[in-house]
Amino acid sequence: MDSKLLKMLLEDFKSGRLDVDAALQKLKKLPFEDLGYARIDSHRCLRTGVSEVVFCAGKTIEQVVGIAGRISQNHRNILLTRASREVFEAVETAVGGCKYHEMARIIVINPEQLEQVGNVAVVSAGTSDMPVAEEAAVTAETLGNRVNRIYDVGVAGIHRLFHVCDDLFKANVAVVAAGMEGALASVVGGLVSCPVIGVPTSIGYGASFGGLAALLGMLNSCAPGVSVVNIDNGFGAGYQASLINKAVCTKPD
Amino acid sequence: MDSKLLKMLLEDFKSGRLDVDAALQKLKKLPFEDLGYARIDSHRCLRTGVSEVVFCAGKTIEQVVGIAGRISQNHRNILLTRASREVFEAVETAVGGCKYHEMARIIVINPEQLEQVGNVAVVSAGTSDMPVAEEAAVTAETLGNRVNRIYDVGVAGIHRLFHVCDDLFKANVAVVAAGMEGALASVVGGLVSCPVIGVPTSIGYGASFGGLAALLGMLNSCAPGVSVVNIDNGFGAGYQASLINKAVCTKPD
Amino acid sequence: MDSKLLKMLLEDFKSGRLDVDAALQKLKKLPFEDLGYARIDSHRCLRTGVSEVVFCAGKTIEQVVGIAGRISQNHRNILLTRASREVFEAVETAVGGCKYHEMARIIVINPEQLEQVGNVAVVSAGTSDMPVAEEAAVTAETLGNRVNRIYDVGVAGIHRLFHVCDDLFKANVAVVAAGMEGALASVVGGLVSCPVIGVPTSIGYGASFGGLAALLGMLNSCAPGVSVVNIDNGFGAGYQASLINKAVCTKPD
Amino acid sequence: MDSKLLKMLLEDFKSGRLDVDAALQKLKKLPFEDLGYARIDSHRCLRTGVSEVVFCAGKTIEQVVGIAGRISQNHRNILLTRASREVFEAVETAVGGCKYHEMARIIVINPEQLEQVGNVAVVSAGTSDMPVAEEAAVTAETLGNRVNRIYDVGVAGIHRLFHVCDDLFKANVAVVAAGMEGALASVVGGLVSCPVIGVPTSIGYGASFGGLAALLGMLNSCAPGVSVVNIDNGFGAGYQASLINKAVCTKPD
Amino acid sequence: MDSKLLKMLLEDFKSGRLDVDAALQKLKKLPFEDLGYARIDSHRCLRTGVSEVVFCAGKTIEQVVGIAGRISQNHRNILLTRASREVFEAVETAVGGCKYHEMARIIVINPEQLEQVGNVAVVSAGTSDMPVAEEAAVTAETLGNRVNRIYDVGVAGIHRLFHVCDDLFKANVAVVAAGMEGALASVVGGLVSCPVIGVPTSIGYGASFGGLAALLGMLNSCAPGVSVVNIDNGFGAGYQASLINKAVCTKPD
Amino acid sequence: MDSKLLKMLLEDFKSGRLDVDAALQKLKKLPFEDLGYARIDSHRCLRTGVSEVVFCAGKTIEQVVGIAGRISQNHRNILLTRASREVFEAVETAVGGCKYHEMARIIVINPEQLEQVGNVAVVSAGTSDMPVAEEAAVTAETLGNRVNRIYDVGVAGIHRLFHVCDDLFKANVAVVAAGMEGALASVVGGLVSCPVIGVPTSIGYGASFGGLAALLGMLNSCAPGVSVVNIDNGFGAGYQASLINKAVCTKPD
Amino acid sequence: MDSKLLKMLLEDFKSGRLDVDAALQKLKKLPFEDLGYARIDSHRCLRTGVSEVVFCAGKTIEQVVGIAGRISQNHRNILLTRASREVFEAVETAVGGCKYHEMARIIVINPEQLEQVGNVAVVSAGTSDMPVAEEAAVTAETLGNRVNRIYDVGVAGIHRLFHVCDDLFKANVAVVAAGMEGALASVVGGLVSCPVIGVPTSIGYGASFGGLAALLGMLNSCAPGVSVVNIDNGFGAGYQASLINKAVCTKPD
Amino acid sequence: MDSKLLKMLLEDFKSGRLDVDAALQKLKKLPFEDLGYARIDSHRCLRTGVSEVVFCAGKTIEQVVGIAGRISQNHRNILLTRASREVFEAVETAVGGCKYHEMARIIVINPEQLEQVGNVAVVSAGTSDMPVAEEAAVTAETLGNRVNRIYDVGVAGIHRLFHVCDDLFKANVAVVAAGMEGALASVVGGLVSCPVIGVPTSIGYGASFGGLAALLGMLNSCAPGVSVVNIDNGFGAGYQASLINKAVCTKPD
Repeated sequence: MDSKLLKMLLEDFKSGRLDVDAALQKLKKLPFEDLGYARIDSHRCLRTGVSEVVFCAGKTIEQVVGIAGRISQNHRNILLTRASREVFEAVETAVGGCKYHEMARIIVINPEQLEQVGNVAVVSAGTSDMPVAEEAAVTAETLGNRVNRIYDVGVAGIHRLFHVCDDLFKANVAVVAAGMEGALASVVGGLVSCPVIGVPTSIGYGASFGGLAALLGMLNSCAPGVSVVNIDNGFGAGYQASLINKAVCTKPD
Repeated sequence: MDSKLLKMLLEDFKSGRLDVDAALQKLKKLPFEDLGYARIDSHRCLRTGVSEVVFCAGKTIEQVVGIAGRISQNHRNILLTRASREVFEAVETAVGGCKYHEMARIIVINPEQLEQVGNVAVVSAGTSDMPVAEEAAVTAETLGNRVNRIYDVGVAGIHRLFHVCDDLFKANVAVVAAGMEGALASVVGGLVSCPVIGVPTSIGYGASFGGLAALLGMLNSCAPGVSVVNIDNGFGAGYQASLINKAVCTKPD
Repeated sequence: MDSKLLKMLLEDFKSGRLDVDAALQKLKKLPFEDLGYARIDSHRCLRTGVSEVVFCAGKTIEQVVGIAGRISQNHRNILLTRASREVFEAVETAVGGCKYHEMARIIVINPEQLEQVGNVAVVSAGTSDMPVAEEAAVTAETLGNRVNRIYDVGVAGIHRLFHVCDDLFKANVAVVAAGMEGALASVVGGLVSCPVIGVPTSIGYGASFGGLAALLGMLNSCAPGVSVVNIDNGFGAGYQASLINKAVCTKPD
Repeated sequence: MDSKLLKMLLEDFKSGRLDVDAALQKLKKLPFEDLGYARIDSHRCLRTGVSEVVFCAGKTIEQVVGIAGRISQNHRNILLTRASREVFEAVETAVGGCKYHEMARIIVINPEQLEQVGNVAVVSAGTSDMPVAEEAAVTAETLGNRVNRIYDVGVAGIHRLFHVCDDLFKANVAVVAAGMEGALASVVGGLVSCPVIGVPTSIGYGASFGGLAALLGMLNSCAPGVSVVNIDNGFGAGYQASLINKAVCTKPD
Repeated sequence: MDSKLLKMLLEDFKSGRLDVDAALQKLKKLPFEDLGYARIDSHRCLRTGVSEVVFCAGKTIEQVVGIAGRISQNHRNILLTRASREVFEAVETAVGGCKYHEMARIIVINPEQLEQVGNVAVVSAGTSDMPVAEEAAVTAETLGNRVNRIYDVGVAGIHRLFHVCDDLFKANVAVVAAGMEGALASVVGGLVSCPVIGVPTSIGYGASFGGLAALLGMLNSCAPGVSVVNIDNGFGAGYQASLINKAVCTKPD
Repeated sequence: MDSKLLKMLLEDFKSGRLDVDAALQKLKKLPFEDLGYARIDSHRCLRTGVSEVVFCAGKTIEQVVGIAGRISQNHRNILLTRASREVFEAVETAVGGCKYHEMARIIVINPEQLEQVGNVAVVSAGTSDMPVAEEAAVTAETLGNRVNRIYDVGVAGIHRLFHVCDDLFKANVAVVAAGMEGALASVVGGLVSCPVIGVPTSIGYGASFGGLAALLGMLNSCAPGVSVVNIDNGFGAGYQASLINKAVCTKPD
Repeated sequence: MDSKLLKMLLEDFKSGRLDVDAALQKLKKLPFEDLGYARIDSHRCLRTGVSEVVFCAGKTIEQVVGIAGRISQNHRNILLTRASREVFEAVETAVGGCKYHEMARIIVINPEQLEQVGNVAVVSAGTSDMPVAEEAAVTAETLGNRVNRIYDVGVAGIHRLFHVCDDLFKANVAVVAAGMEGALASVVGGLVSCPVIGVPTSIGYGASFGGLAALLGMLNSCAPGVSVVNIDNGFGAGYQASLINKAVCTKPD
Repeated sequence: MDSKLLKMLLEDFKSGRLDVDAALQKLKKLPFEDLGYARIDSHRCLRTGVSEVVFCAGKTIEQVVGIAGRISQNHRNILLTRASREVFEAVETAVGGCKYHEMARIIVINPEQLEQVGNVAVVSAGTSDMPVAEEAAVTAETLGNRVNRIYDVGVAGIHRLFHVCDDLFKANVAVVAAGMEGALASVVGGLVSCPVIGVPTSIGYGASFGGLAALLGMLNSCAPGVSVVNIDNGFGAGYQASLINKAVCTKPD
């Protein structure tokens, strides 16, 4: 059962040939694995359009390896986020053929080079924000988006931003990772006409309160067209940017 | 100078026939009005693709009327948000021909019926969240989007949500307005494959702390694909939903 | 003096044959041990219906071993919570015959298999929430309750929850452990008709603020029938679930 | 279709004669009313065991009257909480035969005297906490529980509490409403062997921060067996107390 | 005794002809008035270089009039801040010859046109921030500074700021009043080479938390050279700007 | 039974002639009145050494009058705090012979001029802090302490404080009421050798967050010998100052 | 110059034979040492009645040893608080003859057994609160107070407190150290007639937020006569308790 | 192109011979290096008057060394702040000739002794605040200011401050670094007539909440003329102090 089959099923559902419960029932018939400590959601890729993602923080290495072992059998391009090098080595030993993006802290299991479409700009304010920006960029690339990295263009030297205006104007969606006061999201939001996804980072000290200052700054952005994800959530920003960029690059029915 | 002219200008810029400063200089030549207390940004519609928006809260009625008077001369479909009935009456007297959406607290000056394209779902958890949901819906409609309102489907009676699954699946983007714990954004985010924009509302009491609980809930959503705007910021959600929906409905170059 | 004796005493008290001070005085005559650094509350089991519980965090290993040594002489099924393996080894050396639940971080001294009655559902949102869920489950089991573990059914893939609805419907009380936005408590609360005890966990990052987001989410639950304990307080949830489940399984006088 | 029918249905479901989707489908066939601004959840009483409840704060009087008008046709003992006298008068005019509990701010539509079973203690710390305590007490009484009010027994004069110990010992569940530092929940929790539901109230000033101090105090209670609901949420406490008390008074299958 | 006398005294003190206690003793001999509810600090103007300032919020009109009456006898250019029109009318009636700056909410008693020196730029992000910006501007003007008002140049339309760059470059010190995310302070701080004093304003809603977002944003500014005063403290910003501007315009000894 | 009797009773208890329960039992035999909404604690004056105190905020006028009516029959010098003039007039009508301290918002029922002993300094930083300072001063005076008011000596003009050093040095205990940053408590604490009780006031705006800044400032005082009561809690400060001053003026046994 | 001399000086000052400046000048003539990184306040003992105290946290070992070396030459009973064993060993090596209270983390340099007068009760809620309680107790003992330690009497088993009521009643002042919800301060405050100094401890987890819950609880205590010091500030509590107890034991002039 | 050239350029711009875009364009022609992870802002020294500054926290040693290597080729007196000794050693190895200020955690690359002009007072409250004070002092000295260090003069022994009054009076600007309650900024602000820049430090514990107490204290200072930078931001304070002091020492055009 693949996504075309799913589409057909949903068409039947839309036309009334199938009611909602019947449709859900069919979906639920798809196998999922119960490892005791984790229920692997095998048809998430059908439901939400992306392959399985595993958030490694807070799981033991044994749990990550166990989950990775199972889903590696049926999926490609599986993302393991917040993965330390130690986790990577354990997963690589158990599964093999993984790719590790160290700065982004992302493991890709069964990596498969997808065609990269559209244009996602990933913008960062400072060098220290790069790990979060890379998490967004690698996520978007792995999901099949063309990514344009525009780093170290914080507002303290705003002329640096104007050198990259033309790059910004080409994007279908822009991810802006910034710590401290997070003002870059507002400034970019005031320049471009595409959606902007702000990722506050925990970079800063004192009254940054672990990213709270940047988070509040972005939420209160005076530029419309800016929405925000959790502090340091590069994955979430890259994921939503992918949803938007790919929808733009695909003709609707 | 209209948006086609702007596009041509940017093409020249992309090809190197025009450098970035020259391009910006041309943009800046566009007239803007300095009223002393406000600088009307006449080419924002070129730059960001939408007409002027005036946030009325915190301005005196005199200031709102003054700003409205000027921009009504050159623009259509101007949005005045957070406008009380009293503000509406003053603006209507001064300008005339306005439309007032009372629940959404939005005035549209020089309303013009745009073709409504695509599909923006606006979902609300409870009856009390409706003013915020309406602010999003009216914003999106005024900007030319087809809007599907799905109200009062909060998670306390989750079967209500399943009755509307098929509506949700058709959306290009979903706005979810919810107060209290804001869980609806996560549940919708786990069901659909389009981007979800959460709008925490200030509905609640006690430990909702004016919408903080819903805000934190949405920011920490376990469902990827959810980004968040400020508490009660229905306008911002509707605006970004419009950016996404219209980009999806328009073929990229 | 056991709990029947206590009941008789309280009957006398209810009927007026004994006044409140006399009753309290009798209770206070029960021996308690003063170790200098701890007063062991030997008749707590009479007063509140459970055996002694020792919270190990913040105590030195020497203090834990000292307290354990004394109460192990007169009680069975003593719970030591938040106990690391290191604490377990020191206690086992000193006392012997202990049982250690590693994931739950609970030591049971003088473990005694009680008949397990009723039905307590312990539900967790993600794999990372399992230590807290296990603390609740082991607590409830040790206190004589039948426990049904339902793990990794978070709302990001809500269909997983529907596979376990029938299990949920059988419970006399449900404990729901969830971090991040904690939405699972509201969703479960909207499905079942038994009391739900939410345990926010500290799982998350950024704007989860150490569990604050989940805590506020659960406190503001739009589903009635949900009450909440402290962040990560699996013991407290399991304990209260036991009070409720055992009361339900026991005929009142 | 009443609750016996529902039980039979669930039995079929448990035995495998009916699968979960079929069961849910049947439940969903129950009519619900879509008023545009509210979806009335007609079978909540089946699903969660209580009649419909309407939270009036944040709704316009027109909306409350509209909702009340519809559900009054098919239900008895409907609770409208946070209802001002003005709301009461509008509802009474539209529907008639309502009962208004002024201190509790609760309207009961189609009041029906249920047999009051078991024993729910509702305890308050000070005179100022009474409105919240009454919200809990009236909720529990309306849902068919015997309620024992024990008011003004705060810990500043702890001897007052000992006069009512015997009343506390008889309860199946205790609700404790307290503002300021909320210490009463811990003290009661240390005395009784039944579950305690703490309701922090917003009574206080300065560093009570609208009930935050009492909320944190109760969440950190050193007495096990205490769970907590939102600040001033007397309804939620009375509701959960009812779930517990009635389960205790009813033999399980 | 005037400021020249004071300077001489301090010179004596510096050279050792007078020790610190003797100097302080002399200063303390200056008369001050004890009204019971206020001690008027008659030589503050000597000590800190400005005339008396009265913060009206939190004082009764009677107290303000009483204080104003006394200090109006010996001083010129007295500032009464946070003064409503009602306060103004009472003071004007009692004292006479006052000047009222309504938007700035400042009364000047015994106004005296000082020569205006140097260049203080007062920049505001939006129309709603004008009352705070005016408080700064009027304060600085009254204290004898030339003020250049640059209003409504928020970062959502950053090209507006570039139109005023040349004005900014001429300032000896810039005050930047901005609400919402407060990003304007960082952007201005990155452009100019003079000190910038940020004044977060309480303009905003939801997660602006009464100006907290702007305050944190300015404190975490990635541009060096930005310091911050309290939310809405236009007076404090104008005052410090005056200290800096006048020091720059005066040759040091 | 008066305080001498009580002392004798406690002596018996100390010597073993009476055990603790017997002692408590005797104390509990003292009558207390149950008004339904309030339990009047008639022997608090024996237990804690002061007469009954009624906190009026959060109580209806009817409740205050009812409580006042009862306790006025048996006590003198009863304090009603946070009492508006409206409350005063209702109580005066019902009871008569009351004294109202308007700035302190305190009613004294059955006022009786006690001998005023010792020396309690009540210090305030600004004119706006006077209501809180007066609450402390009137409380202490009513309880029989000599009070020395030292007002408007905030640290912005620290020389004002040195004029009153000699007054400060005479005090047995000092109450310091200050809003804004609350620095006065530290400065006084560094000067005197008696205990200092800080009362943060809610005077301020913006980042004072309703007195939080002053509260945190006083709690973190670098001067030892400073303890703190709740924001605006002038009563609590005056009460504890009275306990200390009177203990100092009375020889211990 | 000792404290008698000081008293004489102040008498002269009171009588007018010496003005305030002259008095302060004399005090300032007392030698103090400037180590570059610390100004040792040699006459603090005269001014505030206790010997020098050094807070070790945040200072390097070298700085502590340097300060200790100097003040050890002229003072006895010097307190070094928050001192680890490592600091103790370095100080002991450099200075010699020190006494280390390990649980209290206090070093006493040149310890001198003062006569212990009066009665300071130091009460703690749980075993984990003992380090803070000991810091208070050792501080008070070193300053010459008789201390009665009453540990592990938290409100979860309130009968334990009644066993020690007679001890509490004998105290001139009570220090109450409690973490979690901090309710013990209120309960003790409601029982005794002496001043109570609450010390919230950082013991707890989750929503205790590092002691914030206990701090807010104690600040909002419904029992008058309770004041509060900073979280974990056992020294501050012991110090103020000493000021009170010694004043009570000393006849005023 | 040096600063004189820049001045000429700006003169042309002021006179209208050059418009703003042309001027900006010229500035942008200055080379800047794109290292991939950092864009070195080579003409910041022209734009804001100081050399490049690198904030090391949050960057890898490799990144710091890479940035340092490049900018060391064209600049002198480059500041690397928040640099550990380990970072210093790596930079020194790579670049050579650096100077390390260990307490201030500042590396100066290509140090050049500038003439030190004017007078910047750097004041600290306690020994523990010295690292932050040194960061300010070394920053100001490196930028060519004469610095007067006045350390350990906290308000707990306020007489220490009076010994240094004369030093304070000579300053053109004062930096005040203080933790705990941060009261020193207010006290200094009340004494001097120059601008005061407060730097709250994170020194403290418990309710200092990592410097929040000092930050709020300084923001709410009752003394005008005080502005504030981020917690522990000694660099920012020293930088702004330099801007002010040097402007005062330079005649304006």
